[in-house]
Amino acid sequence: MKAVVLAAGLGRRIGAPESGVPKPLRKVLGLPLIKRVILSAREAGIREFIVVTGYLGEKIRENLGEGRSLDIKITYVENRQWERGNGLSLLRARDYIDDRFILLMGDHLFDPEIIKDLKEAAIKDDEVLLVVDTEPASYIDLQDATKVRLEEGRIKELGKGLREYDGVDCGIFLCGKDIFRTLQEEIDRGRETITDTMNGLARKNRLFFCDSRGRFWIDIDTEEALKRAEETILKGLIKPTDGIVSKYLNRPISIRISRWLVEREISPNMITFISFLVSVVSAIFLSLGNYVSTIAGGILVQISSIIDGCDGEVARLRFQSSEYGAWFDSVLDRYADGLIILGMVIGLHRYNGGITLWVYGYLALMGTLLTSYTAMKYDALIRAEGGTRWRFGRDTRMLMIMTGALLNEMYYLLITLMVVTNLVTLRRLYILRGA
Amino acid sequence: MKAVVLAAGLGRRIGAPESGVPKPLRKVLGLPLIKRVILSAREAGIREFIVVTGYLGEKIRENLGEGRSLDIKITYVENRQWERGNGLSLLRARDYIDDRFILLMGDHLFDPEIIKDLKEAAIKDDEVLLVVDTEPASYIDLQDATKVRLEEGRIKELGKGLREYDGVDCGIFLCGKDIFRTLQEEIDRGRETITDTMNGLARKNRLFFCDSRGRFWIDIDTEEALKRAEETILKGLIKPTDGIVSKYLNRPISIRISRWLVEREISPNMITFISFLVSVVSAIFLSLGNYVSTIAGGILVQISSIIDGCDGEVARLRFQSSEYGAWFDSVLDRYADGLIILGMVIGLHRYNGGITLWVYGYLALMGTLLTSYTAMKYDALIRAEGGTRWRFGRDTRMLMIMTGALLNEMYYLLITLMVVTNLVTLRRLYILRGA
Repeated sequence: MKAVVLAAGLGRRIGAPESGVPKPLRKVLGLPLIKRVILSAREAGIREFIVVTGYLGEKIRENLGEGRSLDIKITYVENRQWERGNGLSLLRARDYIDDRFILLMGDHLFDPEIIKDLKEAAIKDDEVLLVVDTEPASYIDLQDATKVRLEEGRIKELGKGLREYDGVDCGIFLCGKDIFRTLQEEIDRGRETITDTMNGLARKNRLFFCDSRGRFWIDIDTEEALKRAEETILKGLIKPTDGIVSKYLNRPISIRISRWLVEREISPNMITFISFLVSVVSAIFLSLGNYVSTIAGGILVQISSIIDGCDGEVARLRFQSSEYGAWFDSVLDRYADGLIILGMVIGLHRYNGGITLWVYGYLALMGTLLTSYTAMKYDALIRAEGGTRWRFGRDTRMLMIMTGALLNEMYYLLITLMVVTNLVTLRRLYILRGA
Repeated sequence: MKAVVLAAGLGRRIGAPESGVPKPLRKVLGLPLIKRVILSAREAGIREFIVVTGYLGEKIRENLGEGRSLDIKITYVENRQWERGNGLSLLRARDYIDDRFILLMGDHLFDPEIIKDLKEAAIKDDEVLLVVDTEPASYIDLQDATKVRLEEGRIKELGKGLREYDGVDCGIFLCGKDIFRTLQEEIDRGRETITDTMNGLARKNRLFFCDSRGRFWIDIDTEEALKRAEETILKGLIKPTDGIVSKYLNRPISIRISRWLVEREISPNMITFISFLVSVVSAIFLSLGNYVSTIAGGILVQISSIIDGCDGEVARLRFQSSEYGAWFDSVLDRYADGLIILGMVIGLHRYNGGITLWVYGYLALMGTLLTSYTAMKYDALIRAEGGTRWRFGRDTRMLMIMTGALLNEMYYLLITLMVVTNLVTLRRLYILRGA
């Protein structure tokens, strides 16, 4: 299925023309707005795009290219009359469409899941399905939004000025290929916006809607909306499988770091590696055994735990998430875990050379690696249940190590780790029985 | 989709009536023949069965029950005229069929994949699709098989006596619901076998075929065929991800043990646990450190490695494989691995109390657990490629430990394990990059 992306407008309320940057190229967390739109649609499985440009179109074209490096195909169409209604922009895509298609706005960001739903919907050639948000979140500017009145699965009327309304137009459409006929008719009558065409379809009972179901979307018209979009996207980085320490301590910090990193030239795998190096350094400090180096080691452990969140966050912000990346991260984490415990044991060994210490260390290592080994299956359960179960993960372990170091109680910490990690593993064996 | 299973015959060539056991209840690796047929079909997603009984039908009924414990539904129909052609048995199922269905013989075993293919095939109500083996394996009795002549996707003729033929009838059919009309017509003319009906359909160009593509199937008419079936099923227990030690040393032994275990009252999880206990005992022996106990420990390590194969084998032979079972096995294996290394280190520590020994052991433990941690992703690659890659797995590790113990070179063994397991993990990180 193809997608048409409208990116012809000026964006007067967001700095153009003074800045010389057309709105679709304004950066949101390191990526131009329109690139985010296209990559979100790609995540939902769309591979072919028709981008309609107008104001400073050549800049957009230069920036996005033909899409080969993104594994998609982008075709450009120019609308020289971009100062008139946006219906004229859509009309320019007519020659490239031979089937139903997705219509997107170059300045509307959205959760890819919305498109996945839309792709599955069934419409006739002369019908259109519009995504409607019936419970707009607080970050939506209702003043400026196009409202809709609904009736029995259909949209009755659209308009910015509607007094009474049931929801808000998300600017995401699934269009039958015959939309261009209605579009042409409306334009011929001087009604040149897409909203005009939609009202035309609504009058003919051919405009349906599908609910956005609380998923993220936002229309970026102002600097303020852009800021709100960034905040909302960043908040979405917290994962359902995040442990309590991760959620309330690590993420708030790592997200701030990621926000900074996402605009820098650094790959997620490089961040993974840096987090690993910090762990190695922390293990060396811990192995020295004196109080000062133990404290330094403990703090570094917690820092590496925080940085460990950034690789995935940056990858998701850039639509670069990969199975290998996540796996590479998890394998290096296991080495880091092992080296940190080894550092602790060597540090303790300097005062107490006994065999029990080492046996504790071995068992703590086994328990630690086995909580990770069993995590995959346990996390699948958490996700299936909607993320309510208690999870003892790396976030908690690392915080425990820092705490033990600050209290200078590394021996009891080691015993605690040994007991807790192995009990957690046994608990999972029990909970998941019969799964 | 329903399946009709014909189980009315006498089985004169396989001991009945002297034994008092109808052929469908003859045990093949611990399970009655017909139960294997039904469970194979269940594995392919069939949940409703119509079983046509005749000779000693009440015994079959008693043995299988209504299928509730197997999560299926079995309906029984009796054919009192079981001494006549088997077409009469199929005819008895008529009232229970209202859509296309799978027709199976109660004495033909097969690979469930054959049924999975068949379920996807498209036929009309008056057509039949027969599975044909165009390259029968050496264990198929060609003398006794029903041969087929093929022509342009259709079957032209069937018969035991065909001189020239292109393949062999596997006794597995996908039937359109109108087959009963042709069946009745043929029976009315005195042609009472299913082969007669198939020849009738072939004459009307309504009999198609689908190739068994080298997959396992066998018609069990004689004691010899039963033995061949058992051998073939047992050989099929070797997995594509098996390492070289497993394939050529452990499996040949574990399969013999499983063959014995499968007829005993022991659950796969219990076998897993016994293998774990043997590992624990081996770790204790290794920790004693003297040569005799080291040898005993080393041999027990290899024995536990062999028993470790039996849980999965018995589960598969009984159609009891479960995701949890495999996972439970793998988690206990990791504990066993860890304890064995700990045992080795304690054993060595009795002669050499240095910290390096403990660090080597620690790193060997990390490497060992990480080869398992990375195995899942690596195994997926092996399976995708058809099982040709070198795999350093538990089978090799355990054999190395026994060898080291017999040679009384536990210290070098430990260093070797440390180096090899960590290199294997790094190699996997490299090989799987970009996957």
